[in-house]
Amino acid sequence: MAIKVHGNPISAPTRRVLLCLAEKDVEYEYVHIDLFTGQHKKEPFISINPFGQVPGFEDGDLNLFESRAITKYIAHAYADKGIPLLSEDPKKMGIISVWLEVEAQRFEAAGQKLNIEIVIHPLIGQTTDEAKVEQLQAQLASVLDVYEARLAQSKYLAGDSYTLADLHHVPVINNLMQTKIKTLFDERPHVSAWCTDLLARPAWQKVLAWLNSQ
Amino acid sequence: MAIKVHGNPISAPTRRVLLCLAEKDVEYEYVHIDLFTGQHKKEPFISINPFGQVPGFEDGDLNLFESRAITKYIAHAYADKGIPLLSEDPKKMGIISVWLEVEAQRFEAAGQKLNIEIVIHPLIGQTTDEAKVEQLQAQLASVLDVYEARLAQSKYLAGDSYTLADLHHVPVINNLMQTKIKTLFDERPHVSAWCTDLLARPAWQKVLAWLNSQ
Repeated sequence: MAIKVHGNPISAPTRRVLLCLAEKDVEYEYVHIDLFTGQHKKEPFISINPFGQVPGFEDGDLNLFESRAITKYIAHAYADKGIPLLSEDPKKMGIISVWLEVEAQRFEAAGQKLNIEIVIHPLIGQTTDEAKVEQLQAQLASVLDVYEARLAQSKYLAGDSYTLADLHHVPVINNLMQTKIKTLFDERPHVSAWCTDLLARPAWQKVLAWLNSQ
Repeated sequence: MAIKVHGNPISAPTRRVLLCLAEKDVEYEYVHIDLFTGQHKKEPFISINPFGQVPGFEDGDLNLFESRAITKYIAHAYADKGIPLLSEDPKKMGIISVWLEVEAQRFEAAGQKLNIEIVIHPLIGQTTDEAKVEQLQAQLASVLDVYEARLAQSKYLAGDSYTLADLHHVPVINNLMQTKIKTLFDERPHVSAWCTDLLARPAWQKVLAWLNSQ
């Protein structure tokens, strides 16, 4: 098999890549990286990602890292498989790019940090910083206000179709929905409907089934 | 003229978009947004960017925001003008995407924050947090260690050609080169040569000439 994903089930970026492969219906081999023994900071992993963070990705002789670069590669290289996640049209792609950046810069800065504080820290025996949670919660609320206005205009962030811009949010939304942060999504009706739609997709259900088998 | 850039000369993201337009040799109209009177937080600007940050971008009936989404759109929509900044080949584009993400996630988190602390805060009458500068300096040094190893292998981040992944760094590097942070770049020979090359490009000189005329 040509494609290998080097990752860990706990990692939202690893899950993002697996979700993209599921949506594109592309087969892969999963290579487990043990974060507790620091495999991500040692060879051979750091030859794939010199920053020492999962996931890493191989497709034949091509090595990639950074989950959002990997998903863009998969969407581009396997354009003919599964559902389209990007667009060939420069204007449509421009809109998709805007919401890809919003996720990477604005949603990530609040949502993924909340995920780390509330979900990941307890899992790895670290304490949650409640003052930080409060500040991040306010930050996420103001990001979601913009999402609510946007999703009142179109079913998905970049228009009427599900794209990579929506997909990139799923692993973090899935985790936050199991915490008190769920309220922030639930109290905004269009955001809430969008989350329900994203989490119900068969590709994400496939990733969840795999996670439960680990 | 179809293209309008709504921005401010002080803003690194505005400069990033102007640099991309200069490299692609694409004409545009500049619309000044006065940050001191809060024009970026009011209509009509927030109809372009609901997050209220410059730059905003128009190309005919298309409105975009987020500097990195705008540059990707320009590189894609005006592929036949100026120099190529992206690739049609999925594998080459995969490598470019990795280094685009590294800039957006890792370089930005240290470099742009240092720029704001050391360069922007004094300009707008705010104080520089020296403890934060020290922590960010250590963070940037470890990012630049990876860049040094990478640039020992290839002239530019994504290979032998200058791409959007290099371009995105220029405005922040330009500012930091005028501060004590310059040492971090200078003491890494491949990083230093790369910075010299980027800052000497005619397109960046054109942006600097425009900045001096403001």
